[in-house]
Amino acid sequence: MNEEKHTISLLVDNQPGVLSRIAGLFSGRGFNIESLCVAETMDPLTSGITLTTSGNHMIIEQLTKQLNKLVNVIKVYDLTGTNFVEREMALVKVRANPEHRAEILRLVDIFRCKVVDVSSTHYIIEVTGNQEKLGAFLNLLKPMGIKEISRTGSIALSRNRK
Amino acid sequence: MNEEKHTISLLVDNQPGVLSRIAGLFSGRGFNIESLCVAETMDPLTSGITLTTSGNHMIIEQLTKQLNKLVNVIKVYDLTGTNFVEREMALVKVRANPEHRAEILRLVDIFRCKVVDVSSTHYIIEVTGNQEKLGAFLNLLKPMGIKEISRTGSIALSRNRK
Repeated sequence: MNEEKHTISLLVDNQPGVLSRIAGLFSGRGFNIESLCVAETMDPLTSGITLTTSGNHMIIEQLTKQLNKLVNVIKVYDLTGTNFVEREMALVKVRANPEHRAEILRLVDIFRCKVVDVSSTHYIIEVTGNQEKLGAFLNLLKPMGIKEISRTGSIALSRNRK
Repeated sequence: MNEEKHTISLLVDNQPGVLSRIAGLFSGRGFNIESLCVAETMDPLTSGITLTTSGNHMIIEQLTKQLNKLVNVIKVYDLTGTNFVEREMALVKVRANPEHRAEILRLVDIFRCKVVDVSSTHYIIEVTGNQEKLGAFLNLLKPMGIKEISRTGSIALSRNRK
């Protein structure tokens, strides 16, 4: 059983009930969805979903086949093993004690982040990158005091698909 | 009936079935979830969810009360009407015809985006901002030929909450 992280991209009809059926398909089999993003596409009639999950390759293959059969699911791609770009974003509210501000701004610079809000007590920082980069950034900020995080989960695009 | 966009933030147990129950609560009432992000938090036992939906204020208030009662839902905040920072991210694969490259890179510069992949035929661009900014950027890219988009949906952090 070689457990592997899978990144699956779906195109679905923009209708109530689709997300519930997709999430239900995973939970009904005891599979945890690690991250999931649903958002609009250029066509108001469809939504795009990117989800990540971990599991044995053969079982995930069965799952994607079942996803393909769901009502209102238009396309399913398992990007795993292909050449693709994957990114996530987080907003991080970090305590901005005067003695830490210079170091926080140095990290923002090194990780090519953006400070999107400042108050007398905190900064809110926008960071993008792969899971490892976000993990490394958050670990370095932890000692300053992270007050709150909001994170997107992965989105992905194939490098090759036309 | 004043329909309004609502941004709701949830903290939930990291367990199979939670997302399906939340999505089911919305679709069971005919409510469409416009965007949704689920991702890990600093605590491996919990997940963070940000979702946006539109509807009458009183009905959304009822929905958030019912969300609060769901098994494995720890906290629910409706950020609407409060002071908060909201951002989303998109990866955009755009056709990179030689005659369009300079203009694409000018837009990347003006919108403070990042080019994350280049080939002989396309660029993949990472763009972050609010919904309006992403909409404006995509509209300007459209004439060059957008081949594919992957979008996160909104994440949000309160400016005031400690």
